[in-house]
Amino acid sequence: MTDKSACIIGASGGIGSALAALLPARGYGRIHAGMRSPRTVAGPGFRPFAIDLCDTASIETAAADIAAAGPLDLLVVATGVLHREPDIRPERSLKQIERDAMETVFSINTIGPALVARYFLPLLARDRRAVAVFLSARVGSIADNRLGGWHSYRASKAALNALVRGFAIEARARNGQSVVAALHPGTVDTGLSKPFQRGVRAGQLFTASQSARHLLDVADRLGPDDSGGFFAWDGSVMPF
Amino acid sequence: MTDKSACIIGASGGIGSALAALLPARGYGRIHAGMRSPRTVAGPGFRPFAIDLCDTASIETAAADIAAAGPLDLLVVATGVLHREPDIRPERSLKQIERDAMETVFSINTIGPALVARYFLPLLARDRRAVAVFLSARVGSIADNRLGGWHSYRASKAALNALVRGFAIEARARNGQSVVAALHPGTVDTGLSKPFQRGVRAGQLFTASQSARHLLDVADRLGPDDSGGFFAWDGSVMPF
Repeated sequence: MTDKSACIIGASGGIGSALAALLPARGYGRIHAGMRSPRTVAGPGFRPFAIDLCDTASIETAAADIAAAGPLDLLVVATGVLHREPDIRPERSLKQIERDAMETVFSINTIGPALVARYFLPLLARDRRAVAVFLSARVGSIADNRLGGWHSYRASKAALNALVRGFAIEARARNGQSVVAALHPGTVDTGLSKPFQRGVRAGQLFTASQSARHLLDVADRLGPDDSGGFFAWDGSVMPF
Repeated sequence: MTDKSACIIGASGGIGSALAALLPARGYGRIHAGMRSPRTVAGPGFRPFAIDLCDTASIETAAADIAAAGPLDLLVVATGVLHREPDIRPERSLKQIERDAMETVFSINTIGPALVARYFLPLLARDRRAVAVFLSARVGSIADNRLGGWHSYRASKAALNALVRGFAIEARARNGQSVVAALHPGTVDTGLSKPFQRGVRAGQLFTASQSARHLLDVADRLGPDDSGGFFAWDGSVMPF
């Protein structure tokens, strides 16, 4: 039962690397691990590859290489930016909206994943269940926004959720057993959340490994009728 | 009763110019009409000004000029792009996603309006009811997407809806009587919809003037509890 094939985009990140580490025990014999600077990944079946979401040619080239290795059962897009020194930090108010920072956030969180979808969704198996999940965030829920702020990040994840919805419609036309979904991983103890963990309640800050297990459990449980949806780490439906 | 002050961003567009034309009869004595290439606008109280949503300095300069003329009762952001020769057309499928086109669509439909909000929302009156509406689109509803395609346009308007939600939260903190909302104008007979009118049912294609009347009626009816919402031309609540 190690015949399944997966591809993680963002496999050197906190959640991405934890996801990759869990896959061999879940029956994945081939794990394509996409990162900006590929390094050797220990373990059976790992195939690191270079990909930069801001470089379309790198996405197209990587997809062509992986296509030659056979269809995918699982695609995970585990990339994203919330803050980056010195140019990106989540806005506390309107006054902090800056064009360059907002463009970069959309480029990484929304447009990069769209180009990954263009080139990688066609690699999903067509003759059996195949799943693609995109890491979104609760704060990307428009309806759920009660606190305000974080304008660029919120909007970029809402836009990602919109794209995922549309991608699911196309995926269904190619394979009625496919599932394409947006997932909220919870607040995870990674570099992304590090500066913002103070308000998190005890027991609600997950390790990357816990979160990865939750996400794979949700991905396993989703059916074709869930495709196009937005789900939290515990499988609950999130409002758009 | 001509003491009210309005500002239309995108006042040379189909819906924007129709909106501006209706305002004098609705009690607006001062109508700031923002366009890329300002031209004389007939009628009392019109004050054309130059603004380019892709040029942050032009937004900031325009806002400073208008601030000097006194607070606004109404702000309308009536800009947006769906297609533009030769580089932008709504994608019929994943395969048509292109980075440059998607970046331009987000720049015009999402990031430009965010910068307008940064500089213009603070111009809204703080001591009385004040309304800001952003033209969104039904296809920007994630939940309502049944047909797929139009990936960039849909996602850019979903992102705009997300921004509007956050802006409403900040506006409320400054003025509890304020309303900030996203509006779907219906399908309107303008250059934006021209190539896509074939599937529109009879009676569902509005003139710009009809649509402008609907939008102003909705803007008049919205209360503080509606702030942050997404509404159609007939006042019905749209899902995010």
